[in-house]
Amino acid sequence: MRLNRKDLLGIEELSKEEIELILSTAASFKEVSEREIKKVPTLRGKTIINLFYEASTRTRTSFEIAAKRMSADAVNISVAASSAKKGETLKDTAKNLEAMNPDCIVVRHSSAGAPHMLARYLKSSVINAGDGAHEHPSQALLDMFTVKERLGRLEGLRIVIAGDIAHSRVARSNMHGFKKMGAEVTLCGPPTMMPKGIESICGVKSDMKDAIKDADVIMMLRIQLERQKEALFPSVREYSRVYGLDNEKLNGSKKDVIILHPGPVNRGVEISPEVADGPWSLILEQVKNGVAVRMALFYLLLGGVKE
Amino acid sequence: MRLNRKDLLGIEELSKEEIELILSTAASFKEVSEREIKKVPTLRGKTIINLFYEASTRTRTSFEIAAKRMSADAVNISVAASSAKKGETLKDTAKNLEAMNPDCIVVRHSSAGAPHMLARYLKSSVINAGDGAHEHPSQALLDMFTVKERLGRLEGLRIVIAGDIAHSRVARSNMHGFKKMGAEVTLCGPPTMMPKGIESICGVKSDMKDAIKDADVIMMLRIQLERQKEALFPSVREYSRVYGLDNEKLNGSKKDVIILHPGPVNRGVEISPEVADGPWSLILEQVKNGVAVRMALFYLLLGGVKE
Amino acid sequence: MRLNRKDLLGIEELSKEEIELILSTAASFKEVSEREIKKVPTLRGKTIINLFYEASTRTRTSFEIAAKRMSADAVNISVAASSAKKGETLKDTAKNLEAMNPDCIVVRHSSAGAPHMLARYLKSSVINAGDGAHEHPSQALLDMFTVKERLGRLEGLRIVIAGDIAHSRVARSNMHGFKKMGAEVTLCGPPTMMPKGIESICGVKSDMKDAIKDADVIMMLRIQLERQKEALFPSVREYSRVYGLDNEKLNGSKKDVIILHPGPVNRGVEISPEVADGPWSLILEQVKNGVAVRMALFYLLLGGVKE
Repeated sequence: MRLNRKDLLGIEELSKEEIELILSTAASFKEVSEREIKKVPTLRGKTIINLFYEASTRTRTSFEIAAKRMSADAVNISVAASSAKKGETLKDTAKNLEAMNPDCIVVRHSSAGAPHMLARYLKSSVINAGDGAHEHPSQALLDMFTVKERLGRLEGLRIVIAGDIAHSRVARSNMHGFKKMGAEVTLCGPPTMMPKGIESICGVKSDMKDAIKDADVIMMLRIQLERQKEALFPSVREYSRVYGLDNEKLNGSKKDVIILHPGPVNRGVEISPEVADGPWSLILEQVKNGVAVRMALFYLLLGGVKE
Repeated sequence: MRLNRKDLLGIEELSKEEIELILSTAASFKEVSEREIKKVPTLRGKTIINLFYEASTRTRTSFEIAAKRMSADAVNISVAASSAKKGETLKDTAKNLEAMNPDCIVVRHSSAGAPHMLARYLKSSVINAGDGAHEHPSQALLDMFTVKERLGRLEGLRIVIAGDIAHSRVARSNMHGFKKMGAEVTLCGPPTMMPKGIESICGVKSDMKDAIKDADVIMMLRIQLERQKEALFPSVREYSRVYGLDNEKLNGSKKDVIILHPGPVNRGVEISPEVADGPWSLILEQVKNGVAVRMALFYLLLGGVKE
Repeated sequence: MRLNRKDLLGIEELSKEEIELILSTAASFKEVSEREIKKVPTLRGKTIINLFYEASTRTRTSFEIAAKRMSADAVNISVAASSAKKGETLKDTAKNLEAMNPDCIVVRHSSAGAPHMLARYLKSSVINAGDGAHEHPSQALLDMFTVKERLGRLEGLRIVIAGDIAHSRVARSNMHGFKKMGAEVTLCGPPTMMPKGIESICGVKSDMKDAIKDADVIMMLRIQLERQKEALFPSVREYSRVYGLDNEKLNGSKKDVIILHPGPVNRGVEISPEVADGPWSLILEQVKNGVAVRMALFYLLLGGVKE
């Protein structure tokens, strides 16, 4: 089976059935990374370009490893923000890359909508690896995969997403995803970090202990420390005291709650080290599942022949 | 058949027969990039190093994709100008790389003649991927390939190259190439951008409409906007008005003229968007052919066994 | 046969038998790089990550080529010192990378002990590609390989290591290695560049001609010119005059002495061009052997099946 679409741009546009297809395909690829020989010939002779306008060791590496384990040829291009400004347009760059016959362009860009524009202009598949504060669909898919693998289902679960919701593409993609799958999403964070009018879509709470007390899943977001200049919160210490997840706050939550974080973690800021490394944390499992989800995306979009 | 030389350093040194061999070999590799499985085993076990002393997303990617589609191992090394200055000499770097038994070193350098020096010292094949304002032979080969594929021949064609001729390795390589193949080359640009004494080799015109009126091919060069400090032209707007190619100037040219540009394009400066994206533009076809030409060069220099 | 250890962190911890195993395995891999098809399928489906916190064209390229010639998938990650400071901890980065199921992480870091910390936390193999002024074991192994290949033995040889001993991980690894193999090591350099109390372990001489007169092997270290601010030596010219190896100083040495240098060479500083390029210099042979030694390390640690 294949996804009946050329691109993966966001969770918002996916149907529940498509998400289920991606998650079950990822499950079948996960064991490849645990074999002695971590490689399937599925996408031999395919060319995948990682076009990153924002630096990201983790996400780029995950896509690159996923491509190589599928036997595709992976080409990395990182464009510094400075040179992007004076150079050719994103569209011209992409049209030029496409002329080299890649099968898929994985793009990360600081502008919301950049991958969508590319997808419209290109015949190649486009995967959004994060566009501004808009979407980061492969992250949400790996988060859903991780929860489903652990808890057996998504339907009916209570998910709390906590932190800087307004500026988080991870939060946005996960809100769409978990709601589509029948989970109930509650947001928690300072009012300055909450999108306007979000109450009409999700539950919103401002007190962390209150928010997490019935949660099945707590997803902590990374605080962009560089945003502090915008004075969205009084101080890192204050933020951490009120919204940071530590054992004290976790005391009031369910015994088998699971904790996610998209990484990289600011230890002692949004999450305490004992929680990040504790028994309920699935942070590293998320990273592991990221490779499987990306292998599945390449497979479903590029239509390789399965082993 | 093989090229009877170790290196590809410039078009100036190639015979007409060698150019024909490269172009016909490239034609046979072009379809590889259009297959489902874009890969031939020809250069399996060969090591190709891309050694770039100047940043170039496009050219480096084209060589890397060409290498990978031939099943060679490609290794990218980019040396920042700053670190090159304080570090070891180019010769030492190259001798050290050669000690690792690469089959081919693709080198781009800001100094004219750098690849020639390497070629003299190394047993590996050296491909010049652009040396200062001197030559960029793979670009000229892909330009000739593109023209020949479209118009069926090179002999007798009228080629106009327009822009900053004096500082352009693309112009220099193309002048040599098209003239060798029996085409007639006319240059057009401001007198400050014209090499001294060039009139003895090519036609020179200063008026664009006059220059292009009988042209079969118009090759627009990229203006290095950073050169404007040298006051080679009064202003970008002025340059664009007098030498930029737009529909108005194109009006007086042949109905089936074709337009080339080595990229990246400065839209609205040396070429207007409607011309760059218009029906006579082969800009993206040039990029596509670049991969085929580079596959052919690797094949002809490294002597792989054809599928 | 395999190394009975997960990691290669330093020469200090290796037994004589382990070093012999590595050197003899490297000998068997050396010819792979001289074949028409420079590739064995031994490590197909293995993932090797080069995680470099310090820039190093040469060492990274050598590990990358070694990995590719073994058919492993190589992924390069270079972390700028600046971003490492503000980002996640080294341990978190490594745990996250490990979650992607690499088989081996090759790490270079400016802090002594960084690879050892990683090795403790990770299940993947860790190879130390240089940690601060501590160890650079693959360099010492390729140095021993080069000497043994040329002179037929290590036992009983007289090795002189000259230069900035105190700050050199190359010196430290080689001291351990050559002494384990039964060679006699003498150090030579300015007192400011000599580790305290080193006389209890190695011979120490301050006069170069005296130090090298009976040497079988002279290993010159690279002077870190940026250290000159610390005033470890009065001037480059003065250093070169007293400790630089040139033909005049070599006059008093054995007729068949061999000369090593880990590169990159500062020509005219620690070694004169005529010596670096002369008949006794094995500098490029060292680089060539580096690929073979690193192939052997991957093989012995990752347990591939031999062709």
